[in-house]
Amino acid sequence: VGGLILTVWRFLVKAWNLGVAEPKKVIHAVKVGLALTIVSLCYYIRSLYEGVGGNAMWAVMTVVVVFESSVGATLYKSINRVTATFLAGSLGLGVHWISYKAGEKFEPIIIGISVFFLASAATFSRFIPSVKSRFDYGALIFILTFSLVSVSGYRVDGISELAFQRLSTIFIGTSFCILISILFYPTWAGAELHRLIYRNLEKLADSLDGYVIEYFDYEAVAEDSNHTKAMKGYKYVLDSKATEDNLAKFARWEPAHGCFNFQHPWKQYLKIGASIRSSAYCIEALSGCMDSEIQAPGIGYLKKHVSNACKTMNKFSSDILRELAITLKTMTKSSQMGSLVREMNIAVQQLQISLRSIPNCLIAPTSEDTTDEPSRKTCITPLVEVIPLTTFVSLLIENAARINGI
Amino acid sequence: VGGLILTVWRFLVKAWNLGVAEPKKVIHAVKVGLALTIVSLCYYIRSLYEGVGGNAMWAVMTVVVVFESSVGATLYKSINRVTATFLAGSLGLGVHWISYKAGEKFEPIIIGISVFFLASAATFSRFIPSVKSRFDYGALIFILTFSLVSVSGYRVDGISELAFQRLSTIFIGTSFCILISILFYPTWAGAELHRLIYRNLEKLADSLDGYVIEYFDYEAVAEDSNHTKAMKGYKYVLDSKATEDNLAKFARWEPAHGCFNFQHPWKQYLKIGASIRSSAYCIEALSGCMDSEIQAPGIGYLKKHVSNACKTMNKFSSDILRELAITLKTMTKSSQMGSLVREMNIAVQQLQISLRSIPNCLIAPTSEDTTDEPSRKTCITPLVEVIPLTTFVSLLIENAARINGI
Repeated sequence: VGGLILTVWRFLVKAWNLGVAEPKKVIHAVKVGLALTIVSLCYYIRSLYEGVGGNAMWAVMTVVVVFESSVGATLYKSINRVTATFLAGSLGLGVHWISYKAGEKFEPIIIGISVFFLASAATFSRFIPSVKSRFDYGALIFILTFSLVSVSGYRVDGISELAFQRLSTIFIGTSFCILISILFYPTWAGAELHRLIYRNLEKLADSLDGYVIEYFDYEAVAEDSNHTKAMKGYKYVLDSKATEDNLAKFARWEPAHGCFNFQHPWKQYLKIGASIRSSAYCIEALSGCMDSEIQAPGIGYLKKHVSNACKTMNKFSSDILRELAITLKTMTKSSQMGSLVREMNIAVQQLQISLRSIPNCLIAPTSEDTTDEPSRKTCITPLVEVIPLTTFVSLLIENAARINGI
Repeated sequence: VGGLILTVWRFLVKAWNLGVAEPKKVIHAVKVGLALTIVSLCYYIRSLYEGVGGNAMWAVMTVVVVFESSVGATLYKSINRVTATFLAGSLGLGVHWISYKAGEKFEPIIIGISVFFLASAATFSRFIPSVKSRFDYGALIFILTFSLVSVSGYRVDGISELAFQRLSTIFIGTSFCILISILFYPTWAGAELHRLIYRNLEKLADSLDGYVIEYFDYEAVAEDSNHTKAMKGYKYVLDSKATEDNLAKFARWEPAHGCFNFQHPWKQYLKIGASIRSSAYCIEALSGCMDSEIQAPGIGYLKKHVSNACKTMNKFSSDILRELAITLKTMTKSSQMGSLVREMNIAVQQLQISLRSIPNCLIAPTSEDTTDEPSRKTCITPLVEVIPLTTFVSLLIENAARINGI
């Protein structure tokens, strides 16, 4: 029993910490509770909707299923649900009418065949990418409503009244959800996506800085845990693809809010995200070769030879990333961007010049140093690799920033 | 009208192509249709379950919502649904009894407060990682059932009978789903995960081979589209994280099937997947620097200097990847693995030796070649990088393969 209590206690502590760390999740939970309570209360006060009657459970069910943590997701599900219920309901009534005209003998056969074919077709359509990204939930609800209407049509009399009641309860439920999710501390998928992208840019800049400092001034920072944390920031960037895709999917259902319009170019964010990730891959490769080479001693003077050029170049790279983050954050066109990119390109050329002069250095200390050569190479060159990609990223994002700035 | 027909026609062609390419999806769609039709038919033949009555719509609804494309996902949802319905139903009855005892005045207040707090708590618990990965769907159903029971408890008499009926219909629905998904052409999430991982290994080996051939024998393959396709295989590996996580999540709900036991170490697959991805990051970096350096001419003789060592090393790397793929596929311990790893390590050392001798080569042709030096460096060294990672992967996967081989 003591073990059980301890487990439960630990679970509660974990939950509390999560709640403190991300109050948005607590707010969402409270909002769901609020929406459900209001809908239930409506059910208590009979007079409010005498016309809806015993189907009020559909309103409750709609609230539970449709309410998602972002406004976009709630809208996506609500619109899908109402549309699909309406379509499937009409179709179900149509099939019911046909089977009724065909006579009692054929009724179950017609209904069975139509359920089988429509359910199969709708399930299959959920695999088609264009349907999946927009109407996945709608297809599910379509199957559900169609089979319910055509099956219950066989029993319940006054089916059109039932269909109307169900549609109106679902409409009431979705309206509550949409109102509550927009009016009380709304969480916009678009704003989340915006924040995710510019935070990822900042994390990338921190990582890049961290690795260069780590490599050239190892002793200074070896014990600093904040520094290590900043360095590992790129790992979040690597795994953020699924989150970005989801947020972009929901963001396009959202109306204008804050500084975003309805037709905000959300797809541009996905492109920027992809570019950021391709830079993060480079940093990952860089970190891989640093882990394996950090032990090699005695290459200090070769390091020094390139360190200034590397540091300068890298400073411009991460400055560009930060500038981009600010540009995105404030959605204005940056005035410094052009000159930063130009300066970075100059720094890249300087680094290449200093790399070219290495063979001459090598001749001076002769064969003593050659044993360390592979390791030096492995560590410097990934930096060179980062440059074209960073430039690519910067140009692409500049482009996107301009679109946003309009 | 013509445009509309054309759009619909194109959509149908797309759907048909998808169906031909992946017959599994068609089979799944047919299975859903079958399950729904059977459940509907049960409803027609009254005598079959006189005891279940008008609540049969819950069976239909369960089939629609619970039936997923893999056995694991279906089991996960079924078990979650039945358990959550049972728990929430009991709790709802308890709350209903308490509020009944408290008198008519307090009844709506008690029910409202309990709905609010339980719904908020359950919604919040869905954000906690350990709950989310196993009981996400269960929490949703818990909220749904609890609010339905406590709200309808206010109206409907004989509530315990209602609860029993609902539970039994849900039980019937889930049983159908589980039986049909296991008996007719089952799609096991575990087998899918297994296939995904070893296909990713093969793709990675193809990409690695492709890039080395591309770099050292560019002219020979420049126009071969098959070759380019093989080279780009690593991109699928980069984006497969979300799929792997999902499959592993569902795989652990599956009973023993094929050559997998119930407690098959699915988490090992995730580790292998992460290692494969970290190798893919390296190839991505490699491809990035190749794209930017492929134009540089006149470094042919330096290329030749290292080409043999590189090719040999790379052959062993990709052989190891392929051997690992076979090892995983057949789940046997490989006899060649040890010697392959040893030979690769020897090849790595040879490559390092030939890299060390480069400064001497550079002295021979003097300054003519130095302009090309940075580009040569950028292209060769990522290969060196790949090695420690490949070795790491190989060791890790060997470990996992041994676990599988038991």
